Amino acid sequence: MAAPTVNVYIAVIGAGTIGLSFAALHLTTYPHCIVTIYDPRPDIIIYVDTNLREYLVDANVEQCKSRVRIAQSLAEAVEDADIVQEQGPENVEFKRRTWAQIEQLATDDTLLWSSTSGISASEQSKDMKDQSRLVVVHPYNPPHIMPLLEVVPSPATSQEVIDRTMMYWRYRGRVPVLIRKECTGFVANRLAFALFREACSLVAQGVVGVEDLDSIVQASMGPRWTVAGPFKSYHAGGGEGGLSSFMDKIGGTVQECWDASDRDVEAGNIGVGQSWQEDVCRQTDEAYGVVDTTQRDKKTKAVLKAASK
Amino acid sequence: MAAPTVNVYIAVIGAGTIGLSFAALHLTTYPHCIVTIYDPRPDIIIYVDTNLREYLVDANVEQCKSRVRIAQSLAEAVEDADIVQEQGPENVEFKRRTWAQIEQLATDDTLLWSSTSGISASEQSKDMKDQSRLVVVHPYNPPHIMPLLEVVPSPATSQEVIDRTMMYWRYRGRVPVLIRKECTGFVANRLAFALFREACSLVAQGVVGVEDLDSIVQASMGPRWTVAGPFKSYHAGGGEGGLSSFMDKIGGTVQECWDASDRDVEAGNIGVGQSWQEDVCRQTDEAYGVVDTTQRDKKTKAVLKAASK
Repeated sequence: MAAPTVNVYIAVIGAGTIGLSFAALHLTTYPHCIVTIYDPRPDIIIYVDTNLREYLVDANVEQCKSRVRIAQSLAEAVEDADIVQEQGPENVEFKRRTWAQIEQLATDDTLLWSSTSGISASEQSKDMKDQSRLVVVHPYNPPHIMPLLEVVPSPATSQEVIDRTMMYWRYRGRVPVLIRKECTGFVANRLAFALFREACSLVAQGVVGVEDLDSIVQASMGPRWTVAGPFKSYHAGGGEGGLSSFMDKIGGTVQECWDASDRDVEAGNIGVGQSWQEDVCRQTDEAYGVVDTTQRDKKTKAVLKAASK
Repeated sequence: MAAPTVNVYIAVIGAGTIGLSFAALHLTTYPHCIVTIYDPRPDIIIYVDTNLREYLVDANVEQCKSRVRIAQSLAEAVEDADIVQEQGPENVEFKRRTWAQIEQLATDDTLLWSSTSGISASEQSKDMKDQSRLVVVHPYNPPHIMPLLEVVPSPATSQEVIDRTMMYWRYRGRVPVLIRKECTGFVANRLAFALFREACSLVAQGVVGVEDLDSIVQASMGPRWTVAGPFKSYHAGGGEGGLSSFMDKIGGTVQECWDASDRDVEAGNIGVGQSWQEDVCRQTDEAYGVVDTTQRDKKTKAVLKAASK
């Protein structure tokens, strides 16, 4: 007699694009999981039935969908869950209230994950009895395509919760990265937005157009950083002396660029909602119209596959 | 009788790693070119014979090497050249003097390109009689792998020189991008260094380690930006409303990240040569030792191939 199959129950709270993408990721990478979706929208059953399919790329859609349940209440969703993954509104009151409720409803060893892009576990767990249980698991959208998961504990999060979370994602073949200290925006967005500010500044100054700037990135640091991140890249750039040698040799140019950035950002008032923004958004819209994300995601998968060989 | 083959003569001035990489790029992508290398190092013949090979990846090495000449003087290198490509020392006096000489020695319609990463064509051409001839063609290293070429004219550079330069690189299957205004560091390094500063700042604060930061980039914005640059990516992120909608929805988070960056960079004294640098360099050295760039370049080619399909 075969050993009984042990199912793992995952509650996905909030069924926007991130929720559906995560649901698809669990279903396609974990054959024994049952995903229970809870979202207060009234058409949730038809909505999931219609929209989940597009996230189940290269998968047996019917087999995956047979492992999806729709819960009628938060209690029903989380009561048997091994993992609760929340992607509700980015609103601190909502999150605090929700985690205090979930803590009552779920079993003691259920993993509690928030997909928030900005509200720390410290903030979210303030009304919980046991703040050691909550950890942020921030994806890079969409999670069913992009391998990164930023695992951001609060100072109260237990090592066991961190370890189990990291292990879950490693077994799924993803790239969970532990962030050691809570900080504004976590790491991936901080890095991306720093480059994006420079991009906006250079376009606003008329140095380069939106499409040409994208071409520059796609033909240089995009592929480079897919294979070796910035530290590894500049370390290689320094030859045998590594990053230290790189900084000795071209540190002067680096500092000139940093100084120029600061001057240009200040002179151009490159803040969100300032006058540069309208023109940059218009240029982008003219360049791209509506982006075909299906095509983009297909290419991204091919790129990731090439990088992993 | 077959039409005679018209050879194109390219003079490569300066045979460091960028010079050899460019020589290999011309030889492998342009079957009819003859590359003449000039460099004052005394062992130039043996040096080129020994080192060029490693840049001639997937090519017929002997056939390529049969089209290489070594010049004994600047005059010999440039007198018959259709293109002169300079990657000498990053020293404005050297470049000014060299271009004034080359202008005397070369024919009137020879294309004159500098690979400088920081000295503008305006600065370099000051001692030339005809400043309309010079244009910067800045690669992303190494040019035989990375497709980007930043074409940066001075205000004096002629449209014809710009057009012929862009066309040459398009025919080679590369990605030449015209920069509309000279600026400190040009565009690719400005963008990359902006992200790098944020990376140094976050590592210096202990938010994340060097290797984990690289993993974050490799598993998120690297592959994303290989397929769609930052403007296209955030435009897609805004759904039907595009970048404008993206900024409306998450502009608050973007601004919080920008403000946090500025505070952290200032608080951490994240300038070149400040106290954070030694520890970051040490961490990087411990993480990577000596990087295998052959393996990196092979992977990068596979990634670029996957992105271009």
